[in-house]
Parts: sequence; C-alpha cells; structure tokens
Amino acid sequence: MRVIEKISDLKAIIRSQKSSGKTIGFVPTMGYLHQGHMSLVKASKDENDFTIMSIFVNPTQFGPNEDFDKYPRDMARDTKMAEAAGVDVIFAPLKDEMYPARYKTYVDVEDITNVLCGKSRPSHFKGVTTVVTKLFNIVEPDKAYFGQKDAQQVIVLKKMVRDLNMNLEIVTCPIVRESDGLAMSSRNTYLTPEQRIGALVLSKSLFEAEQLIKDGERDAAKLIGHISERISEVSFAEIDYIEITDIINLEKVDTINGKVLIALAVRFGKTRLIDNVIVEV
Amino acid sequence: MRVIEKISDLKAIIRSQKSSGKTIGFVPTMGYLHQGHMSLVKASKDENDFTIMSIFVNPTQFGPNEDFDKYPRDMARDTKMAEAAGVDVIFAPLKDEMYPARYKTYVDVEDITNVLCGKSRPSHFKGVTTVVTKLFNIVEPDKAYFGQKDAQQVIVLKKMVRDLNMNLEIVTCPIVRESDGLAMSSRNTYLTPEQRIGALVLSKSLFEAEQLIKDGERDAAKLIGHISERISEVSFAEIDYIEITDIINLEKVDTINGKVLIALAVRFGKTRLIDNVIVEV
Repeated sequence: MRVIEKISDLKAIIRSQKSSGKTIGFVPTMGYLHQGHMSLVKASKDENDFTIMSIFVNPTQFGPNEDFDKYPRDMARDTKMAEAAGVDVIFAPLKDEMYPARYKTYVDVEDITNVLCGKSRPSHFKGVTTVVTKLFNIVEPDKAYFGQKDAQQVIVLKKMVRDLNMNLEIVTCPIVRESDGLAMSSRNTYLTPEQRIGALVLSKSLFEAEQLIKDGERDAAKLIGHISERISEVSFAEIDYIEITDIINLEKVDTINGKVLIALAVRFGKTRLIDNVIVEV
Repeated sequence: MRVIEKISDLKAIIRSQKSSGKTIGFVPTMGYLHQGHMSLVKASKDENDFTIMSIFVNPTQFGPNEDFDKYPRDMARDTKMAEAAGVDVIFAPLKDEMYPARYKTYVDVEDITNVLCGKSRPSHFKGVTTVVTKLFNIVEPDKAYFGQKDAQQVIVLKKMVRDLNMNLEIVTCPIVRESDGLAMSSRNTYLTPEQRIGALVLSKSLFEAEQLIKDGERDAAKLIGHISERISEVSFAEIDYIEITDIINLEKVDTINGKVLIALAVRFGKTRLIDNVIVEV
C-alpha cells in the first residue's frame, strides 16, 4: 500500500490503473478509522479492481465554532488498518495541497442542505460537496462509498452527482453499530463514560419508532414525540433535531408512507452525535 | 456529423471514442455561430482526434431582465457551418435535459466573478461555471476551447478547473474581429446600422490605449480616461465599465506592469457589447 500526498502523484497512479482497464473504488474519509469505514473498504474491494481511500480532515466543512482542531487524528493507526483491509492507495493531502492560496471555487446543492444537519451547520454541506467534487476529479472513481450514518450527506452527494452529470456511482453502505447499538463514529471518542451510556438512547429510540411503525403507527408527529420523550429521559442529552422526511428531497412527512428517513442529532456536552433509520411501509 | 440531444447518448459516444484512444476537443457555444466560434473549431481539430461542439443557450447565465428569450438562434445554419468546419458531433440538449425538475446544484467561483461583467450581471458567472462543469462531465474533453473576447469568462473557468482539479486544459483563442475591427459576437446582430458604426469605437479606443502603452504611458487612470473620452464621443454609447486589471485575479492595477487586461463593456441601446486587449510591457 502506498501513501500519497500530492494530487499530481495520485493522478499519475490513476491514469496508469485506468489505462490497464482497472476499475477504481473510492472511500473518502476524515480518518480515525473504525469498522464503519472498514465496511466501505470491503464493499469497494468486492466491487472494484483498485481501492483508494482518502484521509483528509476537510476544513471547509467545519463551522468556525466546530471541532476542526480537535477532530481525532491517528495516521499511524489508520495506515495499519487500511493496509490490513487491503486498501491499495491512501491519499492523505495536506490542507494547502487541497486549498492553495487564493482558492475560490465552491460547489453547492441548494435547499436540501438547509434542513436537518444543515440547519445547525450552515456551511457544512457546501464544504462537503466542494471537497468531494475535488476528490472525485482527482480519483475519477467508478464507484464511491459512503456510510448511511451520514444520511443527509449521502442524499446531497447523490443529488450533486446527478445534477452535475458526474461519471460515477455513489454506493451507500449500512450503518455499522457497536454491539450495544451506538452508531460508530470517530466522534464517539469524545464521549465521557456517562455520555457513552446516555448516547445509547439514540439507537434505542429510533428502533422503538421503527417498531411502532411496524405495529401500525403512521403519524409522524406521534413518532417524533415518542423519540423526543425517550431522549429527554437522559437529563444531559440536548436534542438538535428529530425529523421524519422522504429520502430524496428531505421534505418533512406528516404520515408514514413508502420509504421514510427518521433522522436525529443530539448533543452530549460539546459532542454532537447523529443517527437514523430508514423505514419502509 | 451527428446531432445529439440526450446526455446518455453523448456519453456513450464519448466512451466509445475514449476506449479507442481518441483525444477529445470541446467547443462549448450558445450557437448563432460566427468566425470566432469557427476559429475554436479549427484549433480543436488541429489538436484533437474528435471534436464536439455544444450548442445550448444556457438559461442560468442570463439575468431576469436579460436577453435569454431573444438571444439569436438558427440551428439549421449552425449545423451547416459546424459540419463544413469538420465538427464530429453537435450536442444540442433541450433545457429540461440539462436542468430537469428540482435541479439544485451550482458551481461558483468567488470574488473574481464580482468584478467587471460580474458587477452588472450578478449571477451570470455562476450560470456559466455550472453549465460548463456539467458539459465537462458529459464530454470529458482533453481540451476545451474558449474565445478571448469573453476575457473574464476564460479567467474564471481556468480558476475553476484549477481549483476543482478538473482533468482538462482550457485553451484560449484570440479574438476574431470583423475587417473594421468590431469583435465578433452573436449579439452584434442586435445592432442598428447606426449603432454598428458607433460600436467601432470599442476596438479603436482599446487599440489606441495599447499604442499609448507602447509609447510609454504607464498610468492606468490616464489610459482609462483616454478610452472613456473616445467612447463618449459616440453620443448613444453608454459605458458599463472600463477597467485595467491583472490577468489572474482581475484586480485593478494603477500602473501598467507585466501583462494587463484592458476590458470594457458598453451599451448601445439595449445591446451590451464587450471587448478587451491584453497588453504586456
């Protein structure tokens, strides 16, 4: 496995792989890898000849008061995990390689980036769509792999790929959870032991809502009320949002019908966690 | 020569050309072709195996009170001219093919799009960079050809290609002028005979400024003053801007040094014409 820092070096590798007819799978990450990321690598390796993982904590997707500086980083550990999983190339550019002086160009998906996480993180998705466009142009993958944990991110990126006629497929992989149900996230490392236990309420309340739907509940407000009550039982949990939307345009639904996304974001101290389930009736 | 309307059909042709090792030159236009466009085709044919021209009057680059509806169109004439010039494929999509319902994604180059033409046409360049990104993703050209007449457009697109790490080269071709000096433009067709004569002042005043620089003038304000006086001699000419800037960041220069862009936009009735020269000292 090679670790590449320069865009021009990676482009040369890509050209050589493509010219020998290889398909390219791409797993973009911000590093501090966990089993969620590893499931993306596995999917990429199953479906492509050559797998590239990027590790880049992208400054443009963090707000001014967010955790860019303290976002967990461990390149040595990430490199070992990626190599063990069979990643062919890690692309780990420095910030100036991706955003040189006088950088000016941004990609923005309107409307669906202003709801859910976009409401409390106003420029977040613009940073995501911009860096992902750059990475797609650098890597030119046949398929790119993203986790369902960031449900809105996947929906926004699929919209971007379709709107801009990009030549690749976005593949969504299921949420990977700890054995007790907590969705895996690099940010889980921020949690105190007490918060870690409290955070179980996220997946529990989502699964309960899923069960209520299976049992016949169709009223979105009642389902949200149920989740909200459950989470409020954890005194230090601070709800950012709980919403039920369609899975294409992220518009709120009143009545459960077809496929819906139940998504939430909750703060535990300074740590903001997200989780979701997709339910089909 | 084939005329293609569907993105998927064009992508299939591109894939087939690329898989047989052909290089692709791309000439994006809004149609109503003139010798300026034809010079781009010639350059593309000289430097590539396969030349694609797009003809698409892009609605997103026109402001609400601009000339989208009355922009001149003549597909039959364009097709003949393109075929005679050796274009391999014309891509002429309908509006809904490029911007289907619920279209949401835009590419924006900040700052350098707020000066010169961007000042009086606030969303123009966002429309240009968005449609050109889409076209680049559809055509995947090795080289794309643009005329120097739209000086700011070329600079903005070069910035976008560099910032977003796109895999192609933007080639700029010199302004093609009528024998009396007027820069060729599809919009020249709007001019009344009187305006057509008056419009000669644009290139004349630019060439005079160029000569003044050759003769030693280095004061940008004086040069702008000279051009402004000349244009004001045409009673019905209404100056939008006359500016002298550097050719990368489009920042105003006080003193002529190195390569500078002298650019102007002037209205003749409802018709807004642009012209420019690049001068190096």
